Amino acid sequence: MAKVTPWEVQIKDESDYQRLIEIFGVKPIDEKLKEKLKEYTKELHPLIERNIFYAHRDLDLVLKDYEEGRGFFLYTGIAPSKGKMHIGHLVPFILTRWFQEKFDVNVYIMFPDEEKYWAKKVDDYKEVRRKIKEMHAKYIAALGFDPDKTFMFINSEYIKHLYSAAIPIARHINLSQARAVFGFNDSTSVGLVFYTVLQIVPTFFENKRPLIPAGIDQDPYFRLQRDIAPKLNKYKAAEILSKMIWGLRGPYTKMSSSDPDSAIFLDDSYEEVKRKIMKAFSGGQPTLELHRKYGGNPDIDVVFFWLKALFEEDTKKLKELEQSYREGTLTTGELKQYAIEKIWRFLKDLQEKAKKVDINKYFYDGKLAKQMWEWEL
Amino acid sequence: MAKVTPWEVQIKDESDYQRLIEIFGVKPIDEKLKEKLKEYTKELHPLIERNIFYAHRDLDLVLKDYEEGRGFFLYTGIAPSKGKMHIGHLVPFILTRWFQEKFDVNVYIMFPDEEKYWAKKVDDYKEVRRKIKEMHAKYIAALGFDPDKTFMFINSEYIKHLYSAAIPIARHINLSQARAVFGFNDSTSVGLVFYTVLQIVPTFFENKRPLIPAGIDQDPYFRLQRDIAPKLNKYKAAEILSKMIWGLRGPYTKMSSSDPDSAIFLDDSYEEVKRKIMKAFSGGQPTLELHRKYGGNPDIDVVFFWLKALFEEDTKKLKELEQSYREGTLTTGELKQYAIEKIWRFLKDLQEKAKKVDINKYFYDGKLAKQMWEWEL
Repeated sequence: MAKVTPWEVQIKDESDYQRLIEIFGVKPIDEKLKEKLKEYTKELHPLIERNIFYAHRDLDLVLKDYEEGRGFFLYTGIAPSKGKMHIGHLVPFILTRWFQEKFDVNVYIMFPDEEKYWAKKVDDYKEVRRKIKEMHAKYIAALGFDPDKTFMFINSEYIKHLYSAAIPIARHINLSQARAVFGFNDSTSVGLVFYTVLQIVPTFFENKRPLIPAGIDQDPYFRLQRDIAPKLNKYKAAEILSKMIWGLRGPYTKMSSSDPDSAIFLDDSYEEVKRKIMKAFSGGQPTLELHRKYGGNPDIDVVFFWLKALFEEDTKKLKELEQSYREGTLTTGELKQYAIEKIWRFLKDLQEKAKKVDINKYFYDGKLAKQMWEWEL
Repeated sequence: MAKVTPWEVQIKDESDYQRLIEIFGVKPIDEKLKEKLKEYTKELHPLIERNIFYAHRDLDLVLKDYEEGRGFFLYTGIAPSKGKMHIGHLVPFILTRWFQEKFDVNVYIMFPDEEKYWAKKVDDYKEVRRKIKEMHAKYIAALGFDPDKTFMFINSEYIKHLYSAAIPIARHINLSQARAVFGFNDSTSVGLVFYTVLQIVPTFFENKRPLIPAGIDQDPYFRLQRDIAPKLNKYKAAEILSKMIWGLRGPYTKMSSSDPDSAIFLDDSYEEVKRKIMKAFSGGQPTLELHRKYGGNPDIDVVFFWLKALFEEDTKKLKELEQSYREGTLTTGELKQYAIEKIWRFLKDLQEKAKKVDINKYFYDGKLAKQMWEWEL
């Protein structure tokens, strides 16, 4: 079935996602938990309501901690490669920002500049490092993170703090555990083996429960964290885990930074958005006649999936689109045109905000950032 | 036979040292090389003349580099544990200082505060870190290192520089190589695996050939360095490798920081030196009568070995001692009393100099140290 490690994700259908729940030993986000969450947030984020974030560990305990005044904090990140950031990369950040707004808690965002190089996915780590703020951080900040409650850091720059904390963590992780969790083999770089420790460090930034919004492929790191946290007298990481957003080439394909037509990048122009969406894999019929007769299939339509996951917040409107598409009254061209406008409105706004972001606040000068340059475990 | 990794050294006799030369693939320091070295240094250091440093890699190329104006630099270090530094620990530093004096080159000294903790030889890495300057660095500096040409650093403190350089190095070392060279197993901490990369970093501090005076047990690190240096367009490490100085409990036993009677510590008093030396394993006969009749055996006498290795620089005097001891005219008590005075003169001088050392010069303020806080690969 699906092969899932943080470096190789192959999902072929929804049943794979259900099986991952069993294999990883995580829990589905059920209606009861959604209701509980809603008690604090009033409304549910569409990403949760529509089951893009569909599994979790200890989200119930996070809410209990909040309820009882112990609080919690958020931690997420992205391993940058040479390529640009795309729409799919935003998913965990969108949810993280929402949690920050609803609970008013601190957020930590890691930019590991070495991971993809050690995983042999990029060849120039210095170039990766140089581009992080411009290609990644400013767009993430533009989502609306609180500059005084959000700390962004690049591993090689913040390493003095990370490394000191990694010392006791690494002592509790042996080669056999690392191999079992990540599937390392003989040709794995010893750097990648150590990186697993660094990704765990921020779960100990505060003496509270960390909640980690992430793709489900990141679960292995935090499974390992949960094994060792008790040995260090620390909180086990809580997670809220998402499915992947499909690439433009079809259901369950990936958006890839190295395949421009598979994804929409955060700096794409209106023309690029339009061209890519018009080419996207659709669930429509080959001809207008057939479409009117048999209707389209929103279940395999990438553009409909994107509206559902990210761009149509109005659930009533989404249902109307789905129904009329299925019935054939809404054509593929019409659906795509609708999506193009929605996506572009979002992108244009993000691009404008990204230009105005004071990125140094998040890395160095904001209230939390300043504290974190003094932090040690 | 002898099991030799950087964490487990078991040598039972001289033949083990000869076999290590073959197993590791290093070269013996022969008379021809000694003569060559002497062309530059005028005299040989007793540690080399008397074969305590007995093997090497590329020492001939180091001399050639010096000859032809390319120069070289020196790198060594010590992994501190909770225990005090003893006489045996000084051996590579004594030779390193001598090389610095003779060739007027830079010296880099690493204090890895995490290695022994990851090797599970100590349990409190923060205590180790706190005591490095007081328990280790100041005595090493007191040997006479040039404060403007010597850089000392603690790994967790200098990690930003080390880590950035470790990124490309780690990419070229995979799990299978690391296991083959160091004998790692399933229960090895992933920290110790990564540490191997950090120990290699300083071999690239300058774009010259590094010469590393070290115990022969450290060779695995540099064997690995020599595998990957060409891939990074860097010089392969040269080494000059020593035998271990025997502990006081007998030939081929170890001096151990956790066994006070096995070693003389750098802060021992005259009374402690005297008491320990008087108790030391000797090659003398059980009674004075038998000693006069059959003579002593300097070949298995720890105190004689110490004089030979470290405390009797005068070769003629050493030969006299050896002969009269063998003949029985010199008693064990007399030999020990002679050694006590020699050792104490050395220790007292070192202790006095250590008090006066400005250790910050070596770590932060000296000419070389200042440069190194700006260094990157």
